[in-house]
Amino acid sequence: MEKKTILLLGGFGFIGTNVLNYIDMHLQDQYEVIVFDFFQKHPFNHSFKCIKQVVSGEFGNAVILEEIISKNKIDLVFHFIHTTVPVTSLDIRFDIESNLLPTIHLLDLMHRNGISNIVYLSSGGAVYGRSNDFCKETDHTMPISSYGIIKLTIEKYLNLYRHQYGINSLILRLSNPFGRFHYNTKQGFINIALKAALNRQILQIWGDGTQKKDFIWIDDFSDILFKLLEKNVSNEVLNVGSGEIISLNQVIEKIKDFAPDFQTQYIASKVNDVSLVQLNLKNLLHHIGDYKFTSISDGLKSSYEWLQTQH
Amino acid sequence: MEKKTILLLGGFGFIGTNVLNYIDMHLQDQYEVIVFDFFQKHPFNHSFKCIKQVVSGEFGNAVILEEIISKNKIDLVFHFIHTTVPVTSLDIRFDIESNLLPTIHLLDLMHRNGISNIVYLSSGGAVYGRSNDFCKETDHTMPISSYGIIKLTIEKYLNLYRHQYGINSLILRLSNPFGRFHYNTKQGFINIALKAALNRQILQIWGDGTQKKDFIWIDDFSDILFKLLEKNVSNEVLNVGSGEIISLNQVIEKIKDFAPDFQTQYIASKVNDVSLVQLNLKNLLHHIGDYKFTSISDGLKSSYEWLQTQH
Repeated sequence: MEKKTILLLGGFGFIGTNVLNYIDMHLQDQYEVIVFDFFQKHPFNHSFKCIKQVVSGEFGNAVILEEIISKNKIDLVFHFIHTTVPVTSLDIRFDIESNLLPTIHLLDLMHRNGISNIVYLSSGGAVYGRSNDFCKETDHTMPISSYGIIKLTIEKYLNLYRHQYGINSLILRLSNPFGRFHYNTKQGFINIALKAALNRQILQIWGDGTQKKDFIWIDDFSDILFKLLEKNVSNEVLNVGSGEIISLNQVIEKIKDFAPDFQTQYIASKVNDVSLVQLNLKNLLHHIGDYKFTSISDGLKSSYEWLQTQH
Repeated sequence: MEKKTILLLGGFGFIGTNVLNYIDMHLQDQYEVIVFDFFQKHPFNHSFKCIKQVVSGEFGNAVILEEIISKNKIDLVFHFIHTTVPVTSLDIRFDIESNLLPTIHLLDLMHRNGISNIVYLSSGGAVYGRSNDFCKETDHTMPISSYGIIKLTIEKYLNLYRHQYGINSLILRLSNPFGRFHYNTKQGFINIALKAALNRQILQIWGDGTQKKDFIWIDDFSDILFKLLEKNVSNEVLNVGSGEIISLNQVIEKIKDFAPDFQTQYIASKVNDVSLVQLNLKNLLHHIGDYKFTSISDGLKSSYEWLQTQH
């Protein structure tokens, strides 16, 4: 069987890297990957066998994107790029110009070049806004960050391109992933906490640490992603989380189990942070069955051990 | 009592003109208006007493907008501008650059200049997408046009600016208004039909004419708008329609009552048109009470008579 070619936008980010790693470990005979990323080389200098080609540039660079897509036979696009994170998405114009407009351009290029499948990484934490319930995919959405609004707007345009041009999209509203290959200093509470614990730095926590979130081990995410593709799940918006919802303070306690000297400091809350993220996972579990998620405790230990090997 | 100053964006459009007319007739002692519009003069050469100043320019012209807002004491902004209509919103980049980005700029200017009230005209017909139910404001939205997506995205940003900067917004998801002072040739089925009937032109209808919509007499809209303001209704998204839902073919039949020679022609349906618009008006009626809407038949006759005086 001929390998399928994935165009992985944001391939050297935290999630993209883990997807590359997952393909190398489990699906090397099925996929090869063209990585598009801001970085030319992987930040960890790690090499992945599934990579066919790396193209570096800004997502907003229309010419580069057009060249990749018109010159290669691409079966599937993974759109994992977002240039801002919730708390820094205060420059709305930048958010629109560097995320929304390039995504429209991407969809036009897909349409013109006959590429009809895309996986888009949306946000379970930022799209719904404040809610005390377990959020369902069809719930009313009230994002409290530009980041969340743009993700939602891109979801709506994906729906429009399916409707008008038959481009199939799988939209994953991911909760808070953590695990290996993380290096972002602004997003990813658990990974930032683990790094602080290892380096004996004081961790700053916004608010009082009682914010509760659904955390998911990144390898479970990669596994779920390819399970959904294998089952040809498409034209759906799906929450993706583990269902294990704990507070930041509880995360700290768990880290102290293996890093007892770990110190934290509470600082004033950022206005764009959501204090509770609970996702209704019924639709996801309908597709992937009775999935055995990695526990947060196990994930924390694995991540910490991996971090220690990086020193 | 000192008059309040409204900045009316799109003041010379169909809805803006009717709002000016309504103020002249009922609220001259309460409001004066700064009109911002693409046109320098009113297309009908009609003059309105409530107009204090007219500034012409494109909505995307950041400098002009900044000048108006920084040099005038403005109490309230009516944002009635949209540069595309559903069926022509195929150029998504243009839709984003000429509507979404200037609206963000407007909100920033309001924030910087201490203006904290805005009425935004959203769309009851385009925001929800296809639905067989009476749409509620909290329903899941699946717009099938860029026009609808942009209106929805602006709604989300209005919510964000309320949340972050205390800018109060009243968002009106208006159904299909018709009445006097209409000149758009691309939007407004009833008005276009009446004009064709008067001029003995054949009216082209997309699809088979069985599409049903909620039509509202424009004077009822103006009246409802100021009723809501009087009651200080704010920070709400409200459907605004008459609840009288009839098909395009039924509209044609009603027009034939007074223009029996009226001829129509059916052409292939546009992909971005919605075939059924039914709005749940419970929230609106909660605010305005048991409102006596003008019937479509009465509105049609008044509009036709007015059109005859324009010849």
